[in-house]
Amino acid sequence: MNSSLDSLSYFLQADQIKTDPKECLFYGKDWTSYFDIQAQAVVFPHSTEEIQKLVLWARQHKIGLVPSGGRTGLSSGACATQNEIIVSMERLSHIINFNALDQTLLCQAGVTTERVQEAASKKGFFFPIDFAAKGSSHLGGNVATNAGGLRVLRYGTTRQWVCGLKVVTGRGDLLNLNKGLVKNATGPDLMSHFIGSEGIFGFVTEVEVKLCLPPSSTQILLCALEDLDSLMECYQKFKNNFTLQAFEFFSDNALEKVLQNKNQKSPFSKKYPYYFLIEVESPTKEPQEELLTLFESCLHLSLIKDGLLAENSDQQKLFWSYREQISESLSPYFPYKNDISVRVSQVPAFLKAMEQTLKQSYKDWTVVWFGHLGDGNLHLNILRPHHLSKEEFFQCCRQIDPLVFHTVKQFQGAISAEHGVGLTKKPFLHLSRSPEELHIFRAMKSYYDPDGILNPGKVV
Amino acid sequence: MNSSLDSLSYFLQADQIKTDPKECLFYGKDWTSYFDIQAQAVVFPHSTEEIQKLVLWARQHKIGLVPSGGRTGLSSGACATQNEIIVSMERLSHIINFNALDQTLLCQAGVTTERVQEAASKKGFFFPIDFAAKGSSHLGGNVATNAGGLRVLRYGTTRQWVCGLKVVTGRGDLLNLNKGLVKNATGPDLMSHFIGSEGIFGFVTEVEVKLCLPPSSTQILLCALEDLDSLMECYQKFKNNFTLQAFEFFSDNALEKVLQNKNQKSPFSKKYPYYFLIEVESPTKEPQEELLTLFESCLHLSLIKDGLLAENSDQQKLFWSYREQISESLSPYFPYKNDISVRVSQVPAFLKAMEQTLKQSYKDWTVVWFGHLGDGNLHLNILRPHHLSKEEFFQCCRQIDPLVFHTVKQFQGAISAEHGVGLTKKPFLHLSRSPEELHIFRAMKSYYDPDGILNPGKVV
Repeated sequence: MNSSLDSLSYFLQADQIKTDPKECLFYGKDWTSYFDIQAQAVVFPHSTEEIQKLVLWARQHKIGLVPSGGRTGLSSGACATQNEIIVSMERLSHIINFNALDQTLLCQAGVTTERVQEAASKKGFFFPIDFAAKGSSHLGGNVATNAGGLRVLRYGTTRQWVCGLKVVTGRGDLLNLNKGLVKNATGPDLMSHFIGSEGIFGFVTEVEVKLCLPPSSTQILLCALEDLDSLMECYQKFKNNFTLQAFEFFSDNALEKVLQNKNQKSPFSKKYPYYFLIEVESPTKEPQEELLTLFESCLHLSLIKDGLLAENSDQQKLFWSYREQISESLSPYFPYKNDISVRVSQVPAFLKAMEQTLKQSYKDWTVVWFGHLGDGNLHLNILRPHHLSKEEFFQCCRQIDPLVFHTVKQFQGAISAEHGVGLTKKPFLHLSRSPEELHIFRAMKSYYDPDGILNPGKVV
Repeated sequence: MNSSLDSLSYFLQADQIKTDPKECLFYGKDWTSYFDIQAQAVVFPHSTEEIQKLVLWARQHKIGLVPSGGRTGLSSGACATQNEIIVSMERLSHIINFNALDQTLLCQAGVTTERVQEAASKKGFFFPIDFAAKGSSHLGGNVATNAGGLRVLRYGTTRQWVCGLKVVTGRGDLLNLNKGLVKNATGPDLMSHFIGSEGIFGFVTEVEVKLCLPPSSTQILLCALEDLDSLMECYQKFKNNFTLQAFEFFSDNALEKVLQNKNQKSPFSKKYPYYFLIEVESPTKEPQEELLTLFESCLHLSLIKDGLLAENSDQQKLFWSYREQISESLSPYFPYKNDISVRVSQVPAFLKAMEQTLKQSYKDWTVVWFGHLGDGNLHLNILRPHHLSKEEFFQCCRQIDPLVFHTVKQFQGAISAEHGVGLTKKPFLHLSRSPEELHIFRAMKSYYDPDGILNPGKVV
């Protein structure tokens, strides 16, 4: 342990400091593997006060701090690469209070998303932020990335569910923001400075989230169709008439890979280029007549070529699995992956432009599209062609990034829809944010983190 | 016209500049009348570009600019008091685009709230921000104050309905923020810097708002009860079981004044200290069995002493009028008014503390409470005692402000729930915001408005 690290023991116990390189690698890395992990230690604070001391200590010693939550990020936003000290939030894992009248839950930042959901559920409520990594991801990480997930169409992103934040800024100031108020017209909201800022301005140490009533029962419809224009017409018709929990779409090669992986048959008698799955809120467990009527009218108009309404909860799960297991089923192909968004109305034009661009350079590559259509959030996946080694493919992919992001810029979209900027998308941030916006980000960084000790090198 | 004003004609037409003191008074004043209006001119820009030129001109000449929207504010946030130039947004009144697929409406900032509602409605959609001043208030003003209103419990404040903002900052930079995206994980949201910032950082020139499906039909229940604890128990029971559009409460003297003013009889056979009105979403026009069951169980538990379910839309309007006409019915008494908020769960304790505090100093004064209980938003009204002249009462009221706001601080509430800070609450902002938060506001002000030309003297 070097001499600066020694002085950590003034406010942390021995078991709160680990310097073993294996531990550093474990805590200093998210789900990506593009960068070499370099860290001098991992520390495990127990309280907001300890984090405040840590920040003041880091300012004094000019040592970088990297927040480490559930480490499920996909943009290297929580990777330690500059010999920083990793600050694990895993011991800040208490659910502090449930307030029945306010319908809120106050948690330390290291509580997992799933524990928040479970605690809400035990009290008869619902926490709607939900995604595959919920078992590991921390609430603090959800705030840092403004996590979205499966039900954004219905419930919005994390931003909408936060009513109080405790933050230690890079100055070492403790901010106790909004304190659970519903209405607060005392100047602009400051919680938003930290939501989605990926830990570059402060450590979120406590989060108070709003809860809601559990959703009523839902109906799930899986439809097959010929083209993107029909997809958008169907989207409009269903969205204008029902409360949708989700409107997901995927291309045929996505479904094919899932069925191969699960060794299952297609639910449809033939292949179609695109499919969509919608989850519709329904006050009763019986299929609503209106839903069937609209479905039939779409069939009649030939917008939908074939379709299935899930008849029971097992079938609901099966239909969802076609969408949810795409990522897993593609992983043996070591695909190039990207997560971007455009306005919902721009999705078809964007997809067409993108396919044309890719065809020019990579004619025989397999492009798989899927995503949260209702959020304009598209997941682009390109499978590794057999004739390329992993390394060759990885090199090619580096050339695809600019193609994708320049097309995103052309459509005024976001180069990251929900995964964040981190290290991986930082070189392209200027394609989604104007010079004036980047200047604001830098001014915020200078203000909140004058010594540049917080998550150095990330985002801006 | 002085010589600086002359140079305005380089980019504005003669009919866009008025210096008549009557016009200045008309455009430079909101609904308050605490401050003397002092302005040198009113200008009427037609476009974002003209506003940008105006800001650059004002920086050059070091002249303050005060944004003027629908002028329905209640905190003197849009009052010109330092010989500024008033910038009326009333000619920026075009609805630019309706996007059916995105379910959004793009408007210039000077479109009234009511026109946004009507435009949404014509397309089969709903814009849920709603309050009494909707006919005059501008969408840009709604953004500047993060307007709430009648349906916050169900739909949130303006913040939640904005998906794109065009802003000219006090630096003269044009920001085109978020551009209608649903998901955007490219750094922290910057729209929030301008939402609720009362025009001290920039001019909002265009707003893109999200629309939603119109609500299903609603049931309205008006109940009488004995005490605040029962009120909170009822709130919890109804909120936990139904989707509420509103949960409003008022004291008996509020109802009394409305009935006197309208020359009507009470809907109840006797008087009770408190009443509440709830609007419950209901999939059918028939009263839901569950609603009646819960109502009866509350009667049985003696939480509710008497209650009425509106039987038709006329009765719904009548019941709402008891709540909506309170302000108007109190106005002949020239009441002291305040708009504050605490956590919902703190409402009873706060009301008790406040009543005790007021009783100590103003034993025989009539205190009228009403508000959006479901938002923790309380409107305190104190009627002028007969023995005091208007001036004497006004002097007394200046001593009430600190009493109210110190109690708000004690309960960690907001000294302004929805009216904003403006000039009237600026001296008390430190009671709702910490020194660190005020420091951030000032840093933002220095960044966005280095010459201090935007809405000078407001908020911070």
